Amino acid sequence: MFNDYMTVSKRKVEVCFTPALYPDFKNDDAIVVIVDILRATSAIVTAFMNGVKSIIPVASLEEALDYKQKGFLVAAERDGIVRDFADFGNSPYNFKREIIDGRDIVYSTTNGTNCIMMARHSYRVLIGAYLNLDALANYIAREDRDLIILCAGWKNKFNLEDSLFAGALAESMLKHDHYTTICDSVHASIDLWNLARHNMMAYVEKAAQRHRLKKNNLDDVIGYCHTSNLTSMIPALKNNYLTLIERL
Amino acid sequence: MFNDYMTVSKRKVEVCFTPALYPDFKNDDAIVVIVDILRATSAIVTAFMNGVKSIIPVASLEEALDYKQKGFLVAAERDGIVRDFADFGNSPYNFKREIIDGRDIVYSTTNGTNCIMMARHSYRVLIGAYLNLDALANYIAREDRDLIILCAGWKNKFNLEDSLFAGALAESMLKHDHYTTICDSVHASIDLWNLARHNMMAYVEKAAQRHRLKKNNLDDVIGYCHTSNLTSMIPALKNNYLTLIERL
Repeated sequence: MFNDYMTVSKRKVEVCFTPALYPDFKNDDAIVVIVDILRATSAIVTAFMNGVKSIIPVASLEEALDYKQKGFLVAAERDGIVRDFADFGNSPYNFKREIIDGRDIVYSTTNGTNCIMMARHSYRVLIGAYLNLDALANYIAREDRDLIILCAGWKNKFNLEDSLFAGALAESMLKHDHYTTICDSVHASIDLWNLARHNMMAYVEKAAQRHRLKKNNLDDVIGYCHTSNLTSMIPALKNNYLTLIERL
Repeated sequence: MFNDYMTVSKRKVEVCFTPALYPDFKNDDAIVVIVDILRATSAIVTAFMNGVKSIIPVASLEEALDYKQKGFLVAAERDGIVRDFADFGNSPYNFKREIIDGRDIVYSTTNGTNCIMMARHSYRVLIGAYLNLDALANYIAREDRDLIILCAGWKNKFNLEDSLFAGALAESMLKHDHYTTICDSVHASIDLWNLARHNMMAYVEKAAQRHRLKKNNLDDVIGYCHTSNLTSMIPALKNNYLTLIERL
């Protein structure tokens, strides 16, 4: 294989638009940032803001039910609908301090959890949202590693809201001299981000997920999920659970 | 499954950014337009403009070699490099009238052929390029079917040049009242197309494929491959070969 990069000393930034494409991006030495803006990664960051001790991501509803029967608090939904055995679904508004402070909780969602599991062999798996964007970008720049931004998408398809965030993060990384890219998805994401950023709510109006949430009266969180830099907390995967990066 | 569409009487337009995502789009009642602007679909349209009788797309180099040994003219390349047993590679400039007029030829490329084979069970498989853009859009509008625009991408990854074309074609279709979309890839493609369309060569400068072609001194065709409406010919798949749509 020839080396597409100009120099070996630069770190590369790539955007993977859906988990179905991840096998062609996999790089165990890279940092992988998982993105599921509406709503899993926004909710996970919120949970840590509200004092959760750890979050165990599980891929199947069966596993989530097992944990529930063992006494864990469980967040579980499919297609935006809370499952009846669960304590709550994945609206960030559900992760209230009075319920989750100091607790270990279990979390299973339509798209986000699978991405976390898929990337677990990489150097580091981080949870990305607008809520922690700048902190995330600063941390990654210091780590000096290749970066893969893995969008959860919707059932293996591209989605707008995750790709826009990927553009925001990729653009931040490329301001550092030691990052470069030859990934067309990075260029597309950055261009879409710059089209959307000054009127995000109008832009996200186009997104299919916005209509899915509206249909289920769950679209009250869209503004919150697009609010930047409410926290410097960065959730990261340790063994099989998410904790804060300083506790790794 | 709930129906995401407002009315069942509208036809939907979808963009599939890479063949790796096609299993989640597959719809045997749809028209599928294959797009590999740099250079397979541009070359195929050019071949028909220059009188080729039919083109047999093959996925493997072994099949291409078999056909060569049976006396066919063979176009075959991988990663932009012509294979030594082949008569030529996939530059549109290779498909000259004096060589191909009235001939049946065999064609195997890095990304394009696989897409054609993958979509072969759909209602109709068409070959799309800027060269035949308006003719294609007019034909599809008359057929009144769901449309999937299948971008060949690059080794299962998203690429800019195919996605921009997808935006151009999707935008044309959505001007007709009987088409609609809820596909986020359609919105992204159309927005990228409108960013790029008035200065396409500068925009395509970002694309990784442009750099791959330049490296191999094959980038002389980029302007040609982005020239709109040189022909009204539409290549289509019939059994296992490509012919013109009026000969189906």
